[in-house]
Amino acid sequence: MLAGDEPVRFEVVAEDPASGARAGLLHTPHGIIETPVFMPVGTRGTVKTLSQQDLSELGAGIVLGNAYHLYLRPGTEIIAGHGGLHEFMSWPGAILTDSGGYQVFSLSGLTKIEEEGVRFQSHLDGSRHMFSPELVMEIEHQLGADIIMTFDECTPYPCELEYARQSMDRTLRWAARCHSSHESLVRGEGQRKQTLFGIVQGGVFPDLRRRCCEELTAMEFDGYALGGLGVGEPREQMLDMTRHSLPHLPPDRARYLMGVGLPHDLVESVEIGVDMFDCVIPTRNARNGTLFTPEGRLRIKNARFADDKGPLVEGCTCRACRFYHRSYIRHLFQANEFLGYHLATWHNVHFYLDLMRRMRRSIIDGRFGEWRDDFLGRYRGP
Amino acid sequence: MLAGDEPVRFEVVAEDPASGARAGLLHTPHGIIETPVFMPVGTRGTVKTLSQQDLSELGAGIVLGNAYHLYLRPGTEIIAGHGGLHEFMSWPGAILTDSGGYQVFSLSGLTKIEEEGVRFQSHLDGSRHMFSPELVMEIEHQLGADIIMTFDECTPYPCELEYARQSMDRTLRWAARCHSSHESLVRGEGQRKQTLFGIVQGGVFPDLRRRCCEELTAMEFDGYALGGLGVGEPREQMLDMTRHSLPHLPPDRARYLMGVGLPHDLVESVEIGVDMFDCVIPTRNARNGTLFTPEGRLRIKNARFADDKGPLVEGCTCRACRFYHRSYIRHLFQANEFLGYHLATWHNVHFYLDLMRRMRRSIIDGRFGEWRDDFLGRYRGP
Repeated sequence: MLAGDEPVRFEVVAEDPASGARAGLLHTPHGIIETPVFMPVGTRGTVKTLSQQDLSELGAGIVLGNAYHLYLRPGTEIIAGHGGLHEFMSWPGAILTDSGGYQVFSLSGLTKIEEEGVRFQSHLDGSRHMFSPELVMEIEHQLGADIIMTFDECTPYPCELEYARQSMDRTLRWAARCHSSHESLVRGEGQRKQTLFGIVQGGVFPDLRRRCCEELTAMEFDGYALGGLGVGEPREQMLDMTRHSLPHLPPDRARYLMGVGLPHDLVESVEIGVDMFDCVIPTRNARNGTLFTPEGRLRIKNARFADDKGPLVEGCTCRACRFYHRSYIRHLFQANEFLGYHLATWHNVHFYLDLMRRMRRSIIDGRFGEWRDDFLGRYRGP
Repeated sequence: MLAGDEPVRFEVVAEDPASGARAGLLHTPHGIIETPVFMPVGTRGTVKTLSQQDLSELGAGIVLGNAYHLYLRPGTEIIAGHGGLHEFMSWPGAILTDSGGYQVFSLSGLTKIEEEGVRFQSHLDGSRHMFSPELVMEIEHQLGADIIMTFDECTPYPCELEYARQSMDRTLRWAARCHSSHESLVRGEGQRKQTLFGIVQGGVFPDLRRRCCEELTAMEFDGYALGGLGVGEPREQMLDMTRHSLPHLPPDRARYLMGVGLPHDLVESVEIGVDMFDCVIPTRNARNGTLFTPEGRLRIKNARFADDKGPLVEGCTCRACRFYHRSYIRHLFQANEFLGYHLATWHNVHFYLDLMRRMRRSIIDGRFGEWRDDFLGRYRGP
């Protein structure tokens, strides 16, 4: 480590005495992020339908980018030429880049996993590429996000114990190579501007999860993520794996549950002790016309909203609810108009960010349990 | 007329001594519009990719809606149930609705023109409908726009003299029926909240255009529009028809050139004496990645912008140019991302509105000719 240089520092500011829930501050070179936090997903350098000005107005402090997507298009060099992803997309807040491990396996064709890394074909043009832990660290350094993720194999679901074990062991070896490569890149750059999080795999097997946590912890990452969840396993199993993993991670580091989930998933995961989330659900559902409310989901395309003069959610302070009627937003969806997708996304992202703010407040005020019961009592999933 | 009730009043505030150009004020129940004005097109109750907040920030004072589209979807009753289109789309500014004459002929299937009106099938679901001048006036009254347009037949191009004459004569008879129907609806409503503009047809035949102007003027409309232009005829013919028509319209009423056009078309038409414009070009071109600059058009998808760190237009004060780079906007187009369409639309609408503001300023300052030469000297069409 370069002395005195700690680009991202996590600080716990309040803990719920009755659960694992905690409120924290994630200090980054691009702002202090209040946790628990939801990070809107901007895979290709844009959170779909929202401008960076919109994200600021919504109070998003950190967004996600994806190394796999940005490496393929526009290409890492173009982004590096701007000085990094912050400058390329004109985003003053913090950024976390996912390594693309998940995307290499889920999107690309003819994937071949070797010890060295993964050979794959671009989902855009079929061109052939190879991602190794070292190359992914180089890409993520060029992108310049505040938080970067190790290159892992996202174990699919369902998956046999034996494959999950082999895959997790490889992910651990890759994590060690990422760690070493990251440190070497930091030394070459002469300054530490980015921080590296390790990713826990292990499928739905508690023993594998525990071992993965322990071995990653021994490598001393600056934060830890749970990967390979929210990939099709039952919801209870996802929560169980989270419960089994967190006790084996250092409590003074941020814990990030990748790709999860629905509002009640976030509440129950915060209760377990998760600090950070990302998920495409609020943005993707918005574009399908599925809006989140404190009572559950609302399908705005439903005919019963054709003449509904109320806001999406009574009392909601988001731009969509303050200015527009349900009937108008439904009309926009019926007509496939951009503004419908935009307003729905605005509402859902606001709903998620507001949910996190309320949870954080309740933890700090020592009434998380009460808040949680109230929320889950009203919210009808999925 | 109900005494003392003049919902829309046009006032000329400055005239260019060397041309027909003039600056005016269009007083409406939803604000005073400075002319010459460009009205962004919001056919289905939304200017594509922009929110009403965006339109306000851009300084748009008046937008277009379309009776044909809104009658078919969401349906006039739904909008009337909100109290009108302003309330339905939450737009505090002024609105002009086109009657849908153009759309009935260009979009719908199996059109049959009769003296009574036009039978057509919906382009959405094939359902059968009949638009008469009286029904269209009812629809436009239910929509409640500040300015409403007569129901006309938009004469196609090319078109024989004989058909153009027959079509224009029918448009004149329909205009008289619209006028009478509008007055009767106003009396029924007990107040005059909307104003009716007549539409000049006559193809590319100067004598027909002149006669249409004279006969519409005799009917005493509150404003006059030139229709059936910008439908495929050579640009010079469009300008010629405008030159032939305006002298036969009352100078104290607003003159609106429908569906035109490119930036240099607007400049040359203002020179002739046009006060109002609408066109899908700035918004549609934006979604194709064609941006307007003072030098002409710029195709942002072009590979030469892949690494271009400049704004779309140097010195442009629009949101897209103030915050984003060409390379980023190109990336958004390559990836088909919503934000690209939004930023390009923002820029083009700003370009058009700013063009009108500059023209108006130059007319008031008595230097329109100089400004015009400067603009046309730089701008390379089409």
